[in-house]
Amino acid sequence: MTDPVTAAAMARARELGWTALGRTSPNPAVGAVVLDAAGRVVGEGATAPPGGPHAEVAALAQAGERARGGTAVVTLEPCDHTGRTGPCSEALLAAGVARVVVAVPEPTGLAAGGAQRLRAAGVDVVTGVEQDAAEDGALAPWLLGVREQRPQVVWKVATTLDGRVAAADGTSRWITGPVARAQVHRLRATCDAVLVGSGTVLTDDPQLTVRDADGADADRQPLRVVLDRRGRVPAGARVHDGAARTHVSTAPDPGALLGELWDLDVRRVLLEGGPTLAAAFLSAGLVDEVVAHLAPQLLGAGPALVGDLGISTMAAALQLTPVDVTPLGRDVQLRFRPTRHTGGVMTPEETTD
Amino acid sequence: MTDPVTAAAMARARELGWTALGRTSPNPAVGAVVLDAAGRVVGEGATAPPGGPHAEVAALAQAGERARGGTAVVTLEPCDHTGRTGPCSEALLAAGVARVVVAVPEPTGLAAGGAQRLRAAGVDVVTGVEQDAAEDGALAPWLLGVREQRPQVVWKVATTLDGRVAAADGTSRWITGPVARAQVHRLRATCDAVLVGSGTVLTDDPQLTVRDADGADADRQPLRVVLDRRGRVPAGARVHDGAARTHVSTAPDPGALLGELWDLDVRRVLLEGGPTLAAAFLSAGLVDEVVAHLAPQLLGAGPALVGDLGISTMAAALQLTPVDVTPLGRDVQLRFRPTRHTGGVMTPEETTD
Ligand SMILES: NC(=O)c1ccc[n+]([C@@H]2O[C@H](COP(=O)([O-])OP(=O)(O)OC[C@H]3O[C@@H](n4cnc5c(N)ncnc54)[C@H](OP(=O)(O)O)[C@@H]3O)[C@@H](O)[C@H]2O)c1
Ligand SMILES: NC(=O)c1ccc[n+]([C@@H]2O[C@H](COP(=O)([O-])OP(=O)(O)OC[C@H]3O[C@@H](n4cnc5c(N)ncnc54)[C@H](OP(=O)(O)O)[C@@H]3O)[C@@H](O)[C@H]2O)c1
Repeated sequence: MTDPVTAAAMARARELGWTALGRTSPNPAVGAVVLDAAGRVVGEGATAPPGGPHAEVAALAQAGERARGGTAVVTLEPCDHTGRTGPCSEALLAAGVARVVVAVPEPTGLAAGGAQRLRAAGVDVVTGVEQDAAEDGALAPWLLGVREQRPQVVWKVATTLDGRVAAADGTSRWITGPVARAQVHRLRATCDAVLVGSGTVLTDDPQLTVRDADGADADRQPLRVVLDRRGRVPAGARVHDGAARTHVSTAPDPGALLGELWDLDVRRVLLEGGPTLAAAFLSAGLVDEVVAHLAPQLLGAGPALVGDLGISTMAAALQLTPVDVTPLGRDVQLRFRPTRHTGGVMTPEETTD
Repeated sequence: MTDPVTAAAMARARELGWTALGRTSPNPAVGAVVLDAAGRVVGEGATAPPGGPHAEVAALAQAGERARGGTAVVTLEPCDHTGRTGPCSEALLAAGVARVVVAVPEPTGLAAGGAQRLRAAGVDVVTGVEQDAAEDGALAPWLLGVREQRPQVVWKVATTLDGRVAAADGTSRWITGPVARAQVHRLRATCDAVLVGSGTVLTDDPQLTVRDADGADADRQPLRVVLDRRGRVPAGARVHDGAARTHVSTAPDPGALLGELWDLDVRRVLLEGGPTLAAAFLSAGLVDEVVAHLAPQLLGAGPALVGDLGISTMAAALQLTPVDVTPLGRDVQLRFRPTRHTGGVMTPEETTD
């Protein structure tokens, strides 16, 4: 059991991590809170863009002398290596904190050893505090990258109740309402890249930038990525308007594309393509999260949510695990994770219809 | 503003109405609560099957002498006519209640006058108390029948996230899990009839009865209705197993079918057919409520939620109004009402993608 003060600080540290997500890759989006000896919050920080200070260092700078004898609460174990910035373990020792509370132990050999070094210097270090919540949060893309050496893929799709992502004539504006569309811009802002196929560019000509409610561009824009193996996307397409960087890829398959993006330091991709690309990523097992915005409309015709998956019978359906359901104006956001390692076959239940 | 005691009694009366729904047609499913002079609940009642006592009479019988000087709280204005049972207004006068609180005024000429008669006898009568909630509740099918002279149609459908109601090979067991399927049986129990097309019988051979968790038949079963214009349903189909009455119809269109069912005293129909019948009812404007059970699965192929609606462009999409979202195990229940009188054209919003 974590005491309430530490638990609140850890929850805040996770939130701080989220504020940094989309700006830190290839580094993890870490959040840190510094409490003084009396347990008051005296510093908050999140990972700065590469080359800038780590979360702990930012939080310690805010705390100043008040950190002495206090507690640092961080979502990831402080690093012990000198990269573009000095080791965080050293900064914590210099600040004189008495206790360090960590959610997720450092999984890479390179940066590990922070906890050990702090302990050796007499600091009280606790790790694994609310570890699951931190692992499922802003650290998820980076942790997945450590494990699988590829970016995390979030598939976002707007659909009618009957699973149509556009009408028969190709029109798809607007399936969802303004609240859901604003949410998409917030989601894009947490990603390093936004990905579509040539089909979506040719039909919708989307701009794929992050904009606020007034349509103004955010100062940081994710990389726009278009999978266009046959060079069908014209130079005049809006993805080439200069409002953000654009990478046109001819990668032969989703895995190869993710390799390219990895080398560009992309750690979190928003897949916003049509049914063809969605099917290709799902079939390759390369979707990590599904964000579906379901609109209260029926079309009865038009392109389906997802193209052919090679599934012909109910027992072979691709299973998802529900994460949460959130109303977004008149629409509903449904989040899922693909269910892995179940073999895809459901247990038949003893019920008739 | 209704006082809390009366409001609680009215909420309970609405609940009691729900318990009767599916057993009272062609009569309304009314709920009634009797409070004694001190405001304590001393009687509860709901409409009995045709020929049995009305809700108020049942509640008064339970209350006995304790009703004297008390309050009767009812979802529908007490009737003032002698049908198979005597007028409720008389029963209330005989019981000596001092006050009658009514949600919905009686809309038919035949039974109206109850409030007037009670007032003339010195009873304090309040009508229109939480009227909207009562109208949207168990009285809805009957009120719709009064207005439109046809049964209410609730379209229930189980779908994957990608809007498939079966796999490519026709298998559809099971899209949803046990919690959602139990909910379907509860929903069936509130209906006078369950309707499918010949296509569903030929593919799924469903039994279409109300069963409990152990598979035991409920004592009251809705009428099973099969729309089979070409006589394709075989005599050996499970809808002909004798577990409930079955009506096979060759009605040429949904409106004609609803006319037939009206004459059979059906006031609430659960449409459980496939995409063909769903499209026919939606196109005819004859769906009053949509109950979608959405399962966390993807198929990528198979029959779509709804067949062709003659809609080819986004602006013409059939609009629904969301009612509520309820988790059912791993599945989600989404309820909607078709949005009427909007012309079907959305206001374009000034936002780009
Ligand atoms: N509602 C929504 O959320 C939403 C989102 C996006 C699109 N849409 C709709 O979807 C429709 C477009 O669908 P779409 O399926 O054509 O779009 P898409 O999936 O974005 O693009 C498909 C194209 O991507 C290219 N591609 C490149 N690598 C691929 C690979 N490994 N596997 C498969 N394809 C690859 C293919 O063209 P090459 O072979 O030339 O490379 C393919 O034709 C439009 O009507 C649009 O409005 C809706
Ligand atoms: N997931 C679910 O909730 C669910 C529910 C039901 C069915 N299903 C699936 O749906 C598939 C069956 O689809 P379906 O569309 O064939 O089933 P359906 O809609 O139940 O039956 C269609 C048939 O109804 C008859 N019909 C009678 N009057 C009609 C009218 N006015 N308009 C249109 N049709 C009329 C037609 O045959 P006649 O011309 O011979 O009369 C038509 O072929 C199966 O795969 C089944 O598993 C899924």
